[in-house]
Amino acid sequence: MNEIQELRGVVAELSRKVRALEDQAEIAQLVAQYGPAVDSGSGEAAADLWTDDGAFDVVGHFRMQGHEDISGMVHGDGHQHLIRNGCAHVLTVPHIEVDGDRATGRNYALNIRWDPEADRFRVARVSANAWRWKRTAQGWRVVERVNANLDGSPEHRRLLAPPADRASD
Amino acid sequence: MNEIQELRGVVAELSRKVRALEDQAEIAQLVAQYGPAVDSGSGEAAADLWTDDGAFDVVGHFRMQGHEDISGMVHGDGHQHLIRNGCAHVLTVPHIEVDGDRATGRNYALNIRWDPEADRFRVARVSANAWRWKRTAQGWRVVERVNANLDGSPEHRRLLAPPADRASD
Amino acid sequence: MNEIQELRGVVAELSRKVRALEDQAEIAQLVAQYGPAVDSGSGEAAADLWTDDGAFDVVGHFRMQGHEDISGMVHGDGHQHLIRNGCAHVLTVPHIEVDGDRATGRNYALNIRWDPEADRFRVARVSANAWRWKRTAQGWRVVERVNANLDGSPEHRRLLAPPADRASD
Repeated sequence: MNEIQELRGVVAELSRKVRALEDQAEIAQLVAQYGPAVDSGSGEAAADLWTDDGAFDVVGHFRMQGHEDISGMVHGDGHQHLIRNGCAHVLTVPHIEVDGDRATGRNYALNIRWDPEADRFRVARVSANAWRWKRTAQGWRVVERVNANLDGSPEHRRLLAPPADRASD
Repeated sequence: MNEIQELRGVVAELSRKVRALEDQAEIAQLVAQYGPAVDSGSGEAAADLWTDDGAFDVVGHFRMQGHEDISGMVHGDGHQHLIRNGCAHVLTVPHIEVDGDRATGRNYALNIRWDPEADRFRVARVSANAWRWKRTAQGWRVVERVNANLDGSPEHRRLLAPPADRASD
Repeated sequence: MNEIQELRGVVAELSRKVRALEDQAEIAQLVAQYGPAVDSGSGEAAADLWTDDGAFDVVGHFRMQGHEDISGMVHGDGHQHLIRNGCAHVLTVPHIEVDGDRATGRNYALNIRWDPEADRFRVARVSANAWRWKRTAQGWRVVERVNANLDGSPEHRRLLAPPADRASD
């Protein structure tokens, strides 16, 4: 192997590593945009984080599918009431596992609300989140987000289990 | 184009991507240092996260400008009282948009306090944060942080809107 | 210096930067796995985040050492009671400082619990965390995690101080 072939091999390996880092960073930034989008009432920006037919399942409440459902939720009375009172959808850094053009992850979401009557904030909901993402021509997008209250239900906390443990259930 | 010119092009593109990743990582780490600095009472370390004349605007309360203002706040009676009682300034991962040597971002800050009388912690404040950062000879620094309570005020939650949506307001 | 030597130098510098980014990303993901592991009851997955003889010090309560101690805590009555009621161990993004094959960091942990009687969530504990990590043949692992309640104790909040400030105490 000549010098340039050797160097080309090093560069190819480096390119692979950089792409893996970009995938991680881009997916983490996708998740970091959800809260600010919905809490500022930016329904289209929130919907754009999903694929065209992406799903958002709030277990026990409702399941949205597609951009119209998601932006409709943000512009709807329930959500508008929340943000007019003062509300934060705080998502934590997900654990991300990338497999080619697909990825899965898990993290927490905190829903914190201002309670004007009690003159204080309340942690209204803490939930387990399981994510599926997909690489598209426009970058990584959410294929499915399952959001379930951490209220003691075994199937809700199982959403947080490492993939290997979930498979062996 | 000969082989080495071609490879040089690949390496240049890779260098650009690595720099973009470094910018993201460095800014995220800058934000991750704020809470630990102020909650340990390290006023100079907190101030050093800003440019020399950087601003920190706590909307409705006060606006600090420059290192002396910021370290003065940390060493001041109000903040010292907080940390002596037990206090956590928890910042979430920001959404970051880099444009050359400037960057903007948005995230949440939670202010959680130990209440010795009630023998429990309380979420005292949840706020929207809008950031401007700048690349300096010493690395990325905060140019301005605007911190506004998520109490339902429209102009406060607008701090969380995607830049495109804010521009079209 | 000929063209290929020059390019090899650029690639070597790039490799160093990519490795630094990988270290940061891998350690951040290690921390992101703790909460989901323990809140899903995956004791072995939690223990595997540590080195074989890694330590986990919950200041004022107990100190675990080695995988058996850590998985034993997860499978034990106290923790099982917590997660059956509904519980979230929410860790924030650590500030990370890498020095060769060792790294240190600091962040927050929130322990949020569902209180079925009051029909609401409560922030049960907010703590300062100081971490030591080590690069092993299997990747980065936790050597020691010290977790201390932010209840106003000076030595607890000092865990959050920048290394330089801690040294000068």
